[in-house]
Amino acid sequence: MNLLLLTADDFLDGNLVKLNTKRFKHIKMDVGNSLRVGLLNGQIGNGTIISIKRDYLEMTVQLSGEPPPALPLTVLLALPRPKMLKRCLQHLSALGVKRIFLMNSYRVEKSFWQSPCLSEDNIREQLTLGLEQARDTVLPEVMLEKRFKPFIEDRVPAIVGSARALVAHPGSGHSCPRNIKEPSVLAIGPEGGFIPYEVEMLEFNGFEAIHLGLRILRVETAVIALISRLYD
Amino acid sequence: MNLLLLTADDFLDGNLVKLNTKRFKHIKMDVGNSLRVGLLNGQIGNGTIISIKRDYLEMTVQLSGEPPPALPLTVLLALPRPKMLKRCLQHLSALGVKRIFLMNSYRVEKSFWQSPCLSEDNIREQLTLGLEQARDTVLPEVMLEKRFKPFIEDRVPAIVGSARALVAHPGSGHSCPRNIKEPSVLAIGPEGGFIPYEVEMLEFNGFEAIHLGLRILRVETAVIALISRLYD
Repeated sequence: MNLLLLTADDFLDGNLVKLNTKRFKHIKMDVGNSLRVGLLNGQIGNGTIISIKRDYLEMTVQLSGEPPPALPLTVLLALPRPKMLKRCLQHLSALGVKRIFLMNSYRVEKSFWQSPCLSEDNIREQLTLGLEQARDTVLPEVMLEKRFKPFIEDRVPAIVGSARALVAHPGSGHSCPRNIKEPSVLAIGPEGGFIPYEVEMLEFNGFEAIHLGLRILRVETAVIALISRLYD
Repeated sequence: MNLLLLTADDFLDGNLVKLNTKRFKHIKMDVGNSLRVGLLNGQIGNGTIISIKRDYLEMTVQLSGEPPPALPLTVLLALPRPKMLKRCLQHLSALGVKRIFLMNSYRVEKSFWQSPCLSEDNIREQLTLGLEQARDTVLPEVMLEKRFKPFIEDRVPAIVGSARALVAHPGSGHSCPRNIKEPSVLAIGPEGGFIPYEVEMLEFNGFEAIHLGLRILRVETAVIALISRLYD
């Protein structure tokens, strides 16, 4: 953790912050020490610990800087299996993606949609880990789209707008573009990839197929490799 | 798994392969089906299942193609904690890195060196998962370097040779170069980063410091992001 993310509720009064045991149990610090903090969806700065009690800790907080810029990227990710979903959410959040649609696809196992990992609290926990890792404060939005066709046909055109739309599909299209500057929407399939019908539907809706070369990567690896290639 | 990796021992005679239960328990296929296979450190091709018994499976194998090209990259990775090590080895193997040094660094916890994950068999298992994911056959070499200073001073100059030497260090140096063509050696620190003394020693030995921007990424995320940026 490179930043402790605070919410408005943590502020007692002015710049005084009080955290209960649960929140600071992994912070090994003494009175007088300072640590990097951020206000959820707000500025970043420093906190100085002024007292440590059995059940709570108090610090004074000075917020003075902006979090790192967000990527102008929306990710449409076919819902991965729960363990991989957790890590993908952490990676996406750490990399600065602010809009994530978890969508259905033929090769998404139906049971994945029942996973407790999809609860609002659990999604938020993973996103927060990513923010605290990357010293960011701006919580990404995550939307669940359980039906592929209506999502692509009815919702995606407005989501894409004037952005560049890309679908990662091994073995087709062009090599993933490097260091683009414009906003983009990137669709990433499940393990095993989108089925041809799905790729066709995305292409019909203006998505360009792109790939990362001859190697087939796991979703988790591909997500990071694609984003790192697209935006410096 | 996108390829089943076979060893010379799996071949009974000519192109006939026999696999025991353990190896094919996750292959859900019938007689007559074919699947992509590769020979360890050799060619890739197809296997056609000719019989399935209670304890073993037989297939005929035609090897005809070359595995995807390797990256001209050597990675010096500060030993991560065991769970992250496993995933890093899978990622590195899938991405096509063939020479990996797991090295010590001030912020590597001593206990990590005692982990059973570092046994030859366990390392090989993770590397194989990466190869089978990426349809590769060439097993990376993994070397353990438990002492930082002698490694950097005595061994690294010969490892680097005429390659470009880079050390990933957030907040210093230049932005990670894109799509380089020449061989390179990339040093990646532990969670929390290399300490200044270590970065200085690497720089003294010809390493350029590079970064991925304002965001501090987990080692696992950074490994993939760096490699994807360096080589298309």
